[in-house]
Amino acid sequence: MRFFSDNTASACPEILDALARVNTGRVIAYGDDEWTRELDGVFSEYFGREVRAFAVVTGTAANALSLGTLCPPYGAIFAHQQAHVVEGECGATEFYSNGGRLVLVPGENGRLTADALESALRNMPVSVHAVQPSAVTLSQVTEVGTAYRPDEIAALTEIARRHGLKVHMDGARFANAVAYLGCEPADITWRVGVDVLSFGATKNGALAAEAVIFFDPALVRDFERRRKRAGHLLSKSRFVSAQLLAYIRTGLWKRNAARTNALAQRIGAAAGAALLYPVESNQVFLRLGEDGKARLREAGFGFYDWGAEGGGCARLVVSWDQPDTDVDALCRALAAFTRK
Amino acid sequence: MRFFSDNTASACPEILDALARVNTGRVIAYGDDEWTRELDGVFSEYFGREVRAFAVVTGTAANALSLGTLCPPYGAIFAHQQAHVVEGECGATEFYSNGGRLVLVPGENGRLTADALESALRNMPVSVHAVQPSAVTLSQVTEVGTAYRPDEIAALTEIARRHGLKVHMDGARFANAVAYLGCEPADITWRVGVDVLSFGATKNGALAAEAVIFFDPALVRDFERRRKRAGHLLSKSRFVSAQLLAYIRTGLWKRNAARTNALAQRIGAAAGAALLYPVESNQVFLRLGEDGKARLREAGFGFYDWGAEGGGCARLVVSWDQPDTDVDALCRALAAFTRK
Amino acid sequence: MRFFSDNTASACPEILDALARVNTGRVIAYGDDEWTRELDGVFSEYFGREVRAFAVVTGTAANALSLGTLCPPYGAIFAHQQAHVVEGECGATEFYSNGGRLVLVPGENGRLTADALESALRNMPVSVHAVQPSAVTLSQVTEVGTAYRPDEIAALTEIARRHGLKVHMDGARFANAVAYLGCEPADITWRVGVDVLSFGATKNGALAAEAVIFFDPALVRDFERRRKRAGHLLSKSRFVSAQLLAYIRTGLWKRNAARTNALAQRIGAAAGAALLYPVESNQVFLRLGEDGKARLREAGFGFYDWGAEGGGCARLVVSWDQPDTDVDALCRALAAFTRK
Amino acid sequence: MRFFSDNTASACPEILDALARVNTGRVIAYGDDEWTRELDGVFSEYFGREVRAFAVVTGTAANALSLGTLCPPYGAIFAHQQAHVVEGECGATEFYSNGGRLVLVPGENGRLTADALESALRNMPVSVHAVQPSAVTLSQVTEVGTAYRPDEIAALTEIARRHGLKVHMDGARFANAVAYLGCEPADITWRVGVDVLSFGATKNGALAAEAVIFFDPALVRDFERRRKRAGHLLSKSRFVSAQLLAYIRTGLWKRNAARTNALAQRIGAAAGAALLYPVESNQVFLRLGEDGKARLREAGFGFYDWGAEGGGCARLVVSWDQPDTDVDALCRALAAFTRK
Repeated sequence: MRFFSDNTASACPEILDALARVNTGRVIAYGDDEWTRELDGVFSEYFGREVRAFAVVTGTAANALSLGTLCPPYGAIFAHQQAHVVEGECGATEFYSNGGRLVLVPGENGRLTADALESALRNMPVSVHAVQPSAVTLSQVTEVGTAYRPDEIAALTEIARRHGLKVHMDGARFANAVAYLGCEPADITWRVGVDVLSFGATKNGALAAEAVIFFDPALVRDFERRRKRAGHLLSKSRFVSAQLLAYIRTGLWKRNAARTNALAQRIGAAAGAALLYPVESNQVFLRLGEDGKARLREAGFGFYDWGAEGGGCARLVVSWDQPDTDVDALCRALAAFTRK
Repeated sequence: MRFFSDNTASACPEILDALARVNTGRVIAYGDDEWTRELDGVFSEYFGREVRAFAVVTGTAANALSLGTLCPPYGAIFAHQQAHVVEGECGATEFYSNGGRLVLVPGENGRLTADALESALRNMPVSVHAVQPSAVTLSQVTEVGTAYRPDEIAALTEIARRHGLKVHMDGARFANAVAYLGCEPADITWRVGVDVLSFGATKNGALAAEAVIFFDPALVRDFERRRKRAGHLLSKSRFVSAQLLAYIRTGLWKRNAARTNALAQRIGAAAGAALLYPVESNQVFLRLGEDGKARLREAGFGFYDWGAEGGGCARLVVSWDQPDTDVDALCRALAAFTRK
Repeated sequence: MRFFSDNTASACPEILDALARVNTGRVIAYGDDEWTRELDGVFSEYFGREVRAFAVVTGTAANALSLGTLCPPYGAIFAHQQAHVVEGECGATEFYSNGGRLVLVPGENGRLTADALESALRNMPVSVHAVQPSAVTLSQVTEVGTAYRPDEIAALTEIARRHGLKVHMDGARFANAVAYLGCEPADITWRVGVDVLSFGATKNGALAAEAVIFFDPALVRDFERRRKRAGHLLSKSRFVSAQLLAYIRTGLWKRNAARTNALAQRIGAAAGAALLYPVESNQVFLRLGEDGKARLREAGFGFYDWGAEGGGCARLVVSWDQPDTDVDALCRALAAFTRK
Repeated sequence: MRFFSDNTASACPEILDALARVNTGRVIAYGDDEWTRELDGVFSEYFGREVRAFAVVTGTAANALSLGTLCPPYGAIFAHQQAHVVEGECGATEFYSNGGRLVLVPGENGRLTADALESALRNMPVSVHAVQPSAVTLSQVTEVGTAYRPDEIAALTEIARRHGLKVHMDGARFANAVAYLGCEPADITWRVGVDVLSFGATKNGALAAEAVIFFDPALVRDFERRRKRAGHLLSKSRFVSAQLLAYIRTGLWKRNAARTNALAQRIGAAAGAALLYPVESNQVFLRLGEDGKARLREAGFGFYDWGAEGGGCARLVVSWDQPDTDVDALCRALAAFTRK
């Protein structure tokens, strides 16, 4: 029973169906097809505001293209020290920004706080000798599965605005945040000051589809050239666009997220005191001890270690295609642990 | 009847079937799945030699990652002046090589010649003041649809070797070359000195799948880090790998290429004296005059202009899903022209 | 008797005196000293218009920082195929522009022509698939020692303006151009549409001093951060600024250029039919044959080959500290050749 | 009385004399002159081992070229969080490494500790998803004026070696370290595992001269091309080389450092409990309170604030050309403070 990551999941039937449906005849390549042209409209409706939407195939591309567009080569991007752009993308941000710098900010439960951001900015006075504060990036949900509340985001973006920074959100698991918070997509993005969003679909049921959403069309600037130059403009764009359209229109985004969130809640409840962070998405982090992890693995559960080697922590992620029975079994196993 | 480009084509049923077949359960992401692990073996068999094969989703990514791996930031890459890496990738080579330079070499019928390459190399003496000759890239087939013969490639790679350059082949339409030449894949690659190949499948029936093939494993070096850093390592890698496996194993690559080549031959024959270049793949270039192009478009044929504005030339490309009847109609229309 | 290059020359006494004069006590570093603050004013007077002036120590830095400021990573810079930025700077333009491209344009006597520039621009239609025409760079004087006339520059900059390109001038030997043309510095720069100038002093008598001159202050943008980031903001800036101030204020710039131009004229006259290009600065290019070059070297004259190996051509440059007697001897030797 | 920084200092007479002495006639440019050719030998003798030495004009260039040579684009460089490469070079390291990352490591008194480095390395497991640990950089003396002991350096380089990292030392004030420790230059460099050194001369009496010293010639690799490409290869190289030669040969390096160190010791002693860090070079850091700083400034002393705004700390640096009487006065002023 595999809880390694939601990117180990298969693709939803709705997604494969969408591929089949657009697989008709010869259509103009590189995004000038009817489906790709629908993206702006569909996402504008989704967010309750006119946006520009661009499809890519990986979250790393979405993040790095966004940040490369917002940050000059001599710029600094403030990020939580555990952010995916920091730890999981092999320097993509630095590559796409032509040498920009990620400035790491600490924060509990994977979240940046207003105080920590303000303090980090104070430590980097504007000067020709220093890199230039240019952007801040937030992960919603965070890398430890927690969700920023709208007012937390607003507090951070207010600071950003005051210092002239643009705000990017890494929404690899954006749907899980919306589902958990019970809010509208707008409530955690443009309404609270987010400028650009990496909107993820791959982890939540797509085959390979992410969208970069610009809430301010003026920021699009040279994004399209940067995407092409990076090899991320697909000739047969319809096949990525179709995934995104189906993901939104069929309600798949919310359906899957609500279900995996709920399953994760069950796991968290079963884990009791072993829980490392509040469960606010489809991810659960547990302190099991090295021994506990070994026993769980022997019992047939697959998952990754979390944190420092030997620290005894584990990360378990519920995928959209995870059978309920996997979670039933996991909860039973965890309950047995905690009973001891 | 659309002859714009083979990248306007749909995806083959065999490809969509392959996606469906690997869409089973949760498998380890980022390439550590059973299908991706098969790539090296399947391509090794295909090329009759042990190779390393890496999947990406666009030809631009394949080319730029290859050349970025072969060429240092202060390096020079010799390319035909009409090469796709020169004209169609918005500077991806420069981006991925961190500022390398494309040195343009002229040549008839889209082909580099040994003389022209030798001469270009003589003009760039090795010196700390000049960029450093590092690689040469050939398109097979070329951007005007012609195919290098094996001995032509050998002559070029021999020069490259002598000057310490690595040899890259842009094989966006590699299958068409093999089909036209009636040779083995090996005959136009490693047997004649090619080091790295961008092996295209997208234009010839895949949804979005290309492979970077290293004939010399030592050259792989940091390719995998460069791919990840560029956002071109897909989490659900199986869906790209599956396309490549199906493309090779079902014989799709050759079947489609043989058919579109044959249809292009018919168009070329119908065009007679209007033909600009020998037809050696699925592309046909015609000198029709501005008036001729207009009439052809009025007759319902879609295609792109070719070359300088007002030059009266056209490029027509046969897609794998092009009905025979499209070609029948086109041939009739062209024959009518030439009769006048 | 060494005619290798004017960058083999020593530094003028006026320059060393200037260094000594500013060598007094502790002054604020990184350009906030009284001499550096004078640069804008002194160059504004020199050019008859308000300009911004920034000191650096090499022509390569001046050119690359200028072009990196004018050209985005996905941009194209049009340059003569023999330009120093193309042939002599090891890809500095590509480095500083983070991967921009130099587009080579042919032209007789080292000069770009309006027709050739227009044609090169027509060949690069604005499209997301192609690099974006961004700037043109002219060398005044050119790499073969010829000088653009003001109306030639105006014709080129008019085309640039029409296509949205900025115009850079590589003025490594700017003083020689002014002296030859008998014009004002303004006549070949901002009055005819030049936006940014690399103003050279090193070859003409300074120790190591060049200035980047912005005729449009809006273009300065992030230049200062780029300079710092490149390690080209000197802590003890006064020592570069002092050279530039002395170079302008003492009239050194014109005195030296007028003299070396005149000496080059004498050499050109002595060379007669061996002359390759009109002598319009301190450089002379001769077709002597391999044998002729050998004899000239045996006679004690040092110089570099020019052009293709075995082509029999030579480049001779008069330095500001070249004794008249060196030129006397050279003229005699050349006259003896041509008599035969 | 200005204690802002040692880079506000003038140039030593010995340095200007050296410029005058090499200012003779025309010599081959770009480093092929007799003085530049002496650098390797003179520095080899200085370090008691065969080294390669390359001259540049700024410390930022020396550091960034060194680290760009040691670190691939996807690499990570471990540095103290207060390092000059982190705080004072506007992202030069990221620029020259084409997007490498600085990983910040904390440490008391400006020094990296073996534990902190080991811990930072453990937190960055080698993986295709993460940047690749490539180098560590130490500042000797540190940015807070403290000096690493030889065994401290050895402990750090041993860890580096074990993890496959190269070791760079930022020796902007290298002479001060040698003078303070009473050791040989070798004792804090190659003998304890340093691979590449930025050897500073500018702050300690030169006009603008730094050297990059490679203790392992194999690491030089493409350094010379990188330097040229960055515009840091001076045509009239003799004028930088001459400064370095004079700086070493006249004993200037040690004479100046010993004197400024001694003066700083006096200031430190006078400051008593206000001292923030041990005085181990020519820099003194004091906690004076905002009020104390104001009074010191009113008394005629110029210096920069240190640390967070409002934190009440000051940095005072003794320059080689600082009169003893400046220090006398400062000590009196500080003693008066501490008496209260």
